[in-house]
Amino acid sequence: MPDTLAPELKPPVRILMGPGPSDVHPRVLAALAASTVGHLDPYYLALMNDMQAMLRSLMRTTNRMTFAVSATGSAGMEATVVNLIEPGDAMVVCVNGVFGGRMVDVAQRAGARLTRVDRPWGAVFEPADLADALAKAKPKVVGIVMAETSTGAWQPIEEISRLVHDAGALLLVDAVTALGGIPVEVDRWQIDALYSGTQKCLSCPPGLAPISFSDRAMEVILARKTKVQSWYLDASMLAKYWGEERVYHHTAPINMTYALYEALRLIHEEGIEACHARHMRNHRALAAGLAALGISYAAAEGHRLPMLNAVWIPAGIDDAAVRGMLLSRFGIEIGGGLGDFKGRVWRIGLMGHSSRANNVFTFLGALEQLLAERGHRFEHGASLAAANEAYATAASAT
Amino acid sequence: MPDTLAPELKPPVRILMGPGPSDVHPRVLAALAASTVGHLDPYYLALMNDMQAMLRSLMRTTNRMTFAVSATGSAGMEATVVNLIEPGDAMVVCVNGVFGGRMVDVAQRAGARLTRVDRPWGAVFEPADLADALAKAKPKVVGIVMAETSTGAWQPIEEISRLVHDAGALLLVDAVTALGGIPVEVDRWQIDALYSGTQKCLSCPPGLAPISFSDRAMEVILARKTKVQSWYLDASMLAKYWGEERVYHHTAPINMTYALYEALRLIHEEGIEACHARHMRNHRALAAGLAALGISYAAAEGHRLPMLNAVWIPAGIDDAAVRGMLLSRFGIEIGGGLGDFKGRVWRIGLMGHSSRANNVFTFLGALEQLLAERGHRFEHGASLAAANEAYATAASAT
Repeated sequence: MPDTLAPELKPPVRILMGPGPSDVHPRVLAALAASTVGHLDPYYLALMNDMQAMLRSLMRTTNRMTFAVSATGSAGMEATVVNLIEPGDAMVVCVNGVFGGRMVDVAQRAGARLTRVDRPWGAVFEPADLADALAKAKPKVVGIVMAETSTGAWQPIEEISRLVHDAGALLLVDAVTALGGIPVEVDRWQIDALYSGTQKCLSCPPGLAPISFSDRAMEVILARKTKVQSWYLDASMLAKYWGEERVYHHTAPINMTYALYEALRLIHEEGIEACHARHMRNHRALAAGLAALGISYAAAEGHRLPMLNAVWIPAGIDDAAVRGMLLSRFGIEIGGGLGDFKGRVWRIGLMGHSSRANNVFTFLGALEQLLAERGHRFEHGASLAAANEAYATAASAT
Repeated sequence: MPDTLAPELKPPVRILMGPGPSDVHPRVLAALAASTVGHLDPYYLALMNDMQAMLRSLMRTTNRMTFAVSATGSAGMEATVVNLIEPGDAMVVCVNGVFGGRMVDVAQRAGARLTRVDRPWGAVFEPADLADALAKAKPKVVGIVMAETSTGAWQPIEEISRLVHDAGALLLVDAVTALGGIPVEVDRWQIDALYSGTQKCLSCPPGLAPISFSDRAMEVILARKTKVQSWYLDASMLAKYWGEERVYHHTAPINMTYALYEALRLIHEEGIEACHARHMRNHRALAAGLAALGISYAAAEGHRLPMLNAVWIPAGIDDAAVRGMLLSRFGIEIGGGLGDFKGRVWRIGLMGHSSRANNVFTFLGALEQLLAERGHRFEHGASLAAANEAYATAASAT
């Protein structure tokens, strides 16, 4: 075998408006390239503490066990499930899109006796939808997705949490796309286990999964009769590295942690509420612009995520061709549909550093051009006018 | 809870001569900060192909299923074990240090009927040491660590592989510290599953686990009766993302992949054999310098890893104090001992970009100064003289 030399690394500059990764803030990229130190270096241990404090603040929690799993968001899902579930434990999972379905798969592999509750894609769960399953299954854990990235649906958590806790269960929440984009109140909503990902509303590349376990969840984990099936994700061992003992478990992804650290600093500089408001403002402008082009949302009215806009592809438009043109002519990435929504839905992300008026304008301009070329009729500039009207309304409201 | 703002990111510049992470090449840090693209971007898909080709070349394999697990080296271990083992399968694990012990834990969590074969720390396994266990356990898989980072022992693989295959088992090899530092011949040695980490001899930050499965291993995995217990690490699903279909599984860690890509380019530019020779040359110089200071190795003669020098701490020397001084006064990180070797052994890494004559010189200078301050007697400059003599010998031999 001859040695193989690959070409120079020259990634194109994209505008990432898909379902993640989203645009990475330049300060976060610079942080990634900061000089690597050891995972037991005093500087790194102090950085871990500061990073955890910022994560707690963003998640609105005092949970000690708030840290970052050394892998992507899906590993965060697996970490919460395999730590809380022992073989034979009952679990209820709410499914209204791809990621609820993934949680079912993960939980079954962990040996859960699983009850699946389904709602149509794009819809959300009302507490009443869960009552039967809770009564029958008497679950140890209930899992639900707060921001379903496949449908753009925004799932309210507070009332369901009350019901879940009244039934004596622990609440596990997928906040992969939620964290940083919409309010996530771990303590006030009594969430027992929550995970997220760095590549959505945190303006950071993919690679880490912020996570939090309530004290009650940690008691359950530390009282397990069986070992957690995953050594890598075992929270009882991770607690000793992320806690005061600093016992070596695995070598932490140092530079990715720098990136998450800087990303969290950016959010705290902006202010958490201001960050959420920015996501909402840009969403409303995008939605107004899309409406002017005759494009409507897949998620139910009143339950639309500001950072993930799942919309029906206009009639007669070739999904792959238009997404390809957006990428090749304008450098804009948006997402196609998954599962039931494949070929029917576009997923337009306005997450983290991608959630900027500039991106709204450039995307609407590009889309208007591509639709016009394909014979769609509307007043030229209508989408821009509608977006700017929405911005004006937002500005006058503050 | 008030918003929490952490201090500016300002990591110190270290010389990383511990057991990993090792020094990251500046070009790899620059690659980390390259602009993020989507995980299904045509550019990224092409980059994955090129990265895989370079990994195959470095591992000396044509295995299709050669890729990088989206997590650190320990997750590479877990990935190989949980894919190959179904509950009740027999597995033999060779233990002569911490990482063999870790593999036992991982395998038991996967439901293996486990037979553990022990050798003293610092020793290696001879084929004869395994004969009994193979005959009695009739294992499906035999796991062994090629470069035991806790002891610095270099385990030969070729003969053991023959024995393992004669017994009808698959061979699983930990090459976390080996890959890039010493020859790893996946095809010639018939290794069925191999994993490594980016933060050792690849001059890259921690965060990915290069891995390879032989076709025979993939047949076994695809014929499983049970699902792999880890969704995140399931090779049958990962094969669809890393293979031609490019089916979305989880969001890949884009920027870490850039870093690994650039790290592999550096090794291929240098040449794989030249890279191994460099590791050996710097090891011999360090060993000569240490001998001049009266310091000897923990691993058996003839089985010492060039990139991980585990040495006995000189009598009367306070482990933590001297390592603390190396870090605070000279910015040099070396590793302490793990497990049985805690407080008795130093682990001096010369891995990847850390394996440079400059680092050998600066480390010997610093250590000589610290030992002299503590009343150890030797001719001043003796360690440097010995190191340079070793370099001269190496130069005249080529």
